[in-house]
Amino acid sequence: MKINLDCIPCFVKQTLSTARSLDLDEETTRDLLRHALGLLAELDWSLPPPVIGRDIHRAIRRITGDPDPYRQRKIDDTERALRRLPEIERVINEAEDPFRAAVLFSIVGNAIDLGAKTGIDADVNRVFAGALSRTVEPGALERLRHALSEAERVLFLCDNAGEIVFDRPLLEWIGAAKLTVAVRGGPTINDATLEDAERSGLTERYTVIDNGSDTPGTWLDDCSEPFVREFHAADLVLAKGQGNFECLNNHPRRIIFLFLAKCPLVARDVGLAVESCVIRDSREGAQS
Amino acid sequence: MKINLDCIPCFVKQTLSTARSLDLDEETTRDLLRHALGLLAELDWSLPPPVIGRDIHRAIRRITGDPDPYRQRKIDDTERALRRLPEIERVINEAEDPFRAAVLFSIVGNAIDLGAKTGIDADVNRVFAGALSRTVEPGALERLRHALSEAERVLFLCDNAGEIVFDRPLLEWIGAAKLTVAVRGGPTINDATLEDAERSGLTERYTVIDNGSDTPGTWLDDCSEPFVREFHAADLVLAKGQGNFECLNNHPRRIIFLFLAKCPLVARDVGLAVESCVIRDSREGAQS
Repeated sequence: MKINLDCIPCFVKQTLSTARSLDLDEETTRDLLRHALGLLAELDWSLPPPVIGRDIHRAIRRITGDPDPYRQRKIDDTERALRRLPEIERVINEAEDPFRAAVLFSIVGNAIDLGAKTGIDADVNRVFAGALSRTVEPGALERLRHALSEAERVLFLCDNAGEIVFDRPLLEWIGAAKLTVAVRGGPTINDATLEDAERSGLTERYTVIDNGSDTPGTWLDDCSEPFVREFHAADLVLAKGQGNFECLNNHPRRIIFLFLAKCPLVARDVGLAVESCVIRDSREGAQS
Repeated sequence: MKINLDCIPCFVKQTLSTARSLDLDEETTRDLLRHALGLLAELDWSLPPPVIGRDIHRAIRRITGDPDPYRQRKIDDTERALRRLPEIERVINEAEDPFRAAVLFSIVGNAIDLGAKTGIDADVNRVFAGALSRTVEPGALERLRHALSEAERVLFLCDNAGEIVFDRPLLEWIGAAKLTVAVRGGPTINDATLEDAERSGLTERYTVIDNGSDTPGTWLDDCSEPFVREFHAADLVLAKGQGNFECLNNHPRRIIFLFLAKCPLVARDVGLAVESCVIRDSREGAQS
């Protein structure tokens, strides 16, 4: 997905709200905003939005001198998620269709996202409370179930810290034997890295690799060779979050995207309302 | 009023919506957005917002090659306003306090503003329908009435085309004898120029001067010498619209500002809610 012109003011706004959420002082915030404006003026707008996000967040790390400004936030979100996990696992196990429940909790876990809070209620509790009553497009769940049961080698592309804890029931359903889990190659916003995967209990159970990139999405040009090999070798790629969708939605290989549609432009692209739970099989295109 | 950091994303957003309202093609819109981003990155952020607006609208005129992109819109707004004027004059003449009514219609006329549509209902009809039931801060109207009756030389700073038609009943109350009416020195957004003043029936009745500047506000550094002389010579300056307030709110001379608070930051500055009718006497400061 290429940048839409509406992304440009949104990026400037996000830069300002990021500076504020990090409690940066006025002068640093000004430096950062000026830098982001210059960056946006110069950048190739045919890139997907997460690549711009990558450069803005690189600037944030450089200007603040903090290599991982969201580290504490990610630790907190992970701990909060781990405390909620037993309760969610119980709900999933008791559900009529535990697979459906695991998928829905994984998708609503995508509400933990600092990069694209547009209309999503900040109260993750609220989102979780309604998880099982969410609907997905007709047939999408069955196609996912079928694709997963057929695939022998599944690559799961993670999104944010905290969120990845809520992916665990779905990962469990898929099974460690055929699963490789991928996280970002380095800190970028609150996206999950190896450190977060470890803290979330993923590394002890699954093969977890990093993608070698600090883009808050999976931008293959930016990823390590071992990751790209795994990406092509897998029978099926599951990709969590808007950033992965924006980077990979035009890729020819089969990918099933799972995310909450937070941005109105992404929602329009998938033909659903903002806040919808999306299961989008790249093989099905607009029909899925 | 200096630029607030929140103005920065707002300017980028306004640039995009301006491009769209002018039906610019995708490539011109991109050029314009890039230019605005570069401009904002470089500019002195201690200037008031209208000075940034001036530079963005200069870029719009240069990039589109159109010296007055809003000309038709201004003509239409003026004609629409002239058609409504007799009805409004009747309402004012029949009002219990025609001065109050004239002031309120002048202020709500400020809804005709393409530069700062943040939460104001685009339907000017709706605004007008409620004009007489609007409230202003206690005492503000009496101070204005008193200041006007005492002044022998009043300078009235206009804001937008269309809006200036609705200033006519107030100007009539003040009287041509002691009045000088000032408009912008050149096209900028839909701000009123001499051409608009003529079309609105002002020039045949009042002394109308232009301020020599294409800033969508009154930025004295930018204004012609004759205008600045008049500005200082007047006993009282009445200034319509947010742009004039943003440029002049810290000026030591007495100015009474009349506007609709459209921008949340301006509203906060005057201590009123967004959409409030503001009569702010610079002599009274925060107490007015």
